[in-house]
Amino acid sequence: MKQTSRNAFVDLPTITLKPHGQKRLGRDHPWVYSNEVEMDAAAKEVPPGGLVRLCDAHGRYQATAFFNRHPLIAARVLTRDESVAIDTAFLAARLTRALAIRDRLVGVPYYRLIHAEADGLPGVVIDRFGDALTLQVNTAGMEALTPQLIDALNAVVAPRTIVLRNDSAVRSLEQLEECVAVVQGRLDGPVTLEENGARFFADLEGGQKTGWFYDQRDNRAWAARLAKAARVLDCYAFAGGFTVQAALAGAKEVTALDRSQGALDLAAQAAEANDVAGRCRFVRAEVFQELQRQSEAGERYGLVIVDPPAFVKSKKDLAQGLKGYRKMVRLAAPLVAEGGFLLAASCSHHADLASFADQVKRGLQDAGREGRILRTSGAAPDHPVHPALPESSYLKVQILALD
Amino acid sequence: MKQTSRNAFVDLPTITLKPHGQKRLGRDHPWVYSNEVEMDAAAKEVPPGGLVRLCDAHGRYQATAFFNRHPLIAARVLTRDESVAIDTAFLAARLTRALAIRDRLVGVPYYRLIHAEADGLPGVVIDRFGDALTLQVNTAGMEALTPQLIDALNAVVAPRTIVLRNDSAVRSLEQLEECVAVVQGRLDGPVTLEENGARFFADLEGGQKTGWFYDQRDNRAWAARLAKAARVLDCYAFAGGFTVQAALAGAKEVTALDRSQGALDLAAQAAEANDVAGRCRFVRAEVFQELQRQSEAGERYGLVIVDPPAFVKSKKDLAQGLKGYRKMVRLAAPLVAEGGFLLAASCSHHADLASFADQVKRGLQDAGREGRILRTSGAAPDHPVHPALPESSYLKVQILALD
Repeated sequence: MKQTSRNAFVDLPTITLKPHGQKRLGRDHPWVYSNEVEMDAAAKEVPPGGLVRLCDAHGRYQATAFFNRHPLIAARVLTRDESVAIDTAFLAARLTRALAIRDRLVGVPYYRLIHAEADGLPGVVIDRFGDALTLQVNTAGMEALTPQLIDALNAVVAPRTIVLRNDSAVRSLEQLEECVAVVQGRLDGPVTLEENGARFFADLEGGQKTGWFYDQRDNRAWAARLAKAARVLDCYAFAGGFTVQAALAGAKEVTALDRSQGALDLAAQAAEANDVAGRCRFVRAEVFQELQRQSEAGERYGLVIVDPPAFVKSKKDLAQGLKGYRKMVRLAAPLVAEGGFLLAASCSHHADLASFADQVKRGLQDAGREGRILRTSGAAPDHPVHPALPESSYLKVQILALD
Repeated sequence: MKQTSRNAFVDLPTITLKPHGQKRLGRDHPWVYSNEVEMDAAAKEVPPGGLVRLCDAHGRYQATAFFNRHPLIAARVLTRDESVAIDTAFLAARLTRALAIRDRLVGVPYYRLIHAEADGLPGVVIDRFGDALTLQVNTAGMEALTPQLIDALNAVVAPRTIVLRNDSAVRSLEQLEECVAVVQGRLDGPVTLEENGARFFADLEGGQKTGWFYDQRDNRAWAARLAKAARVLDCYAFAGGFTVQAALAGAKEVTALDRSQGALDLAAQAAEANDVAGRCRFVRAEVFQELQRQSEAGERYGLVIVDPPAFVKSKKDLAQGLKGYRKMVRLAAPLVAEGGFLLAASCSHHADLASFADQVKRGLQDAGREGRILRTSGAAPDHPVHPALPESSYLKVQILALD
């Protein structure tokens, strides 16, 4: 692993924390907000995402961080040990630690390998599909270190293919441009992945997010237990995760709804590959409209899954987005047969669990349905949460039994 | 199933709701507080726990409920259908519904069969140990219906043995006396139960709560995955649930700590029954003291489990009790080896998840340890939650990987 001069840590610029920034850092928080540092000449000279020494007002070292004076989150901590250089070896150590947890908890090489701050790599998301990786970089600091990160990935994981999925909207907060590119190896169409013993296909270049939502792995296994001998409706089916696993668990019939034909094609391909195509139907539709239509037609299912894209895109959308979850449950609940099950999910970062749960409750009331929550859960453990950033546990799932 | 005259529903006394009580009920909440009903002559004549018709100010029927004017929770809803009589058949229907969910989700006859409001039986907790049941009744209303409930249990579950575990402190809120008695069949020492494929023993008469904590079933299975080849420390081990499952999953060695010799004897018996006694040690100790002692002795474990009894016993204890969780994590974290795991639990009803998570975070900071949350979870699905009572999801568990 080559060292680069950029990572010489002896001469990093110093950024001075204001007392409240100092207090935040002291609580092991990995961020410093822009109003918590002195925006002095030194700060203004740091290029976006440059490495800095964070020091208190007395010049005492506190942490090494990426610094970007433009966004609200101005500094992102990498280490609190001044003797540690931020170089390829540092990145490789973080990857190795993350890899050990995934290998232990998932067992097969299909998982989220790096989940940003919780894995010690601010703004970096890496998903693994066997020997192919998708890499998403959302901060200027990691953007500058991308070559070293790729070196570290080659040292630790040795992937054949690396796809840069730098098309997240959050990149604009750090004034980064969007870009999707195969930066190592090549892609010949969708890649294969394995989840809970089933086989799936992911489009690493054109699919939503990084191509697959590993965060629902455990919830898919759980929902499958409720699918046996049932008619199942999988709304926002994407590439067929819930659909195929429900069919494999013995569902009588599964209907997958999605607005994207590309996603449904991948789902249908997965159904074929797992020999359950005969019990799966793939319907291209706008989910809310289709729920309404089926409800009026008197359709009933033993299990209805609604796992939509984020309805709350930003803090200012919160009230409106939350109403979307209420409406979603109001439309989905009537399709659940008496004694059947409803899985409702939200991946909105800006909606917390209590708010989401409240909307689920209201939606049930709107639909005139009673029931009980059997399970409240979040993302699978390859999407860990930093203890100081509880708000980063973005996925919220409730599974209910309805009367 | 015999009908009793008490359940004739045509002539139940009427309790009139004040507008805010009416509003609460309208939101599908199963409770009415004492300041939400007119405490008129009719209300004062209802014996504690008597069945009543809840009506709005215009005399319109809203629900059938238990009524007790003494506690804060004055009315507990049983049904919103006036034509439904609250009799043995009603109780049997609720049991049948609950049984279907457990049989589907647990698979073996060892589970919480009824979890109070969420299963439509306010204040009733029933745990099943094959053909033995423990029955806990915490409201005056269900106390009066206990004979019908036992009839219903015999009709639906046909247990050989029923143990009344009416020794919960919350009974005093309804002015009920404490009483433990075998009311059907007999008990010859501890009973056997099966959990995640392992065999355990529960003392249905003398043990804590109802003899076993089924709520941790799924978390025990999860923790066991982290135990392979590890030294494990199980604090507050009780009858050995975590200990034995960790040993069965391949732990090198498990140390079980508890202050109760009776609990440790049951745990040791379980270790024998599962052929893992050679890798389990049972140590009678006060947990905080023992953690401190082992920490000073430099002990290190791959997995440390701390699943204590409730530290927050009442709302007024909240601040003090929360500090207990912080201290618990501060004492336990130093015993976790680098790269090892910590499971921290709280079963305090009065501490919510966010507060508990905050204490875990602070305890880690106190101990100077960093890490990530791999899983945040609650009780197993045989402990469902009423959507209008999110505060009833009392169990909170975090599993962390520490650096």
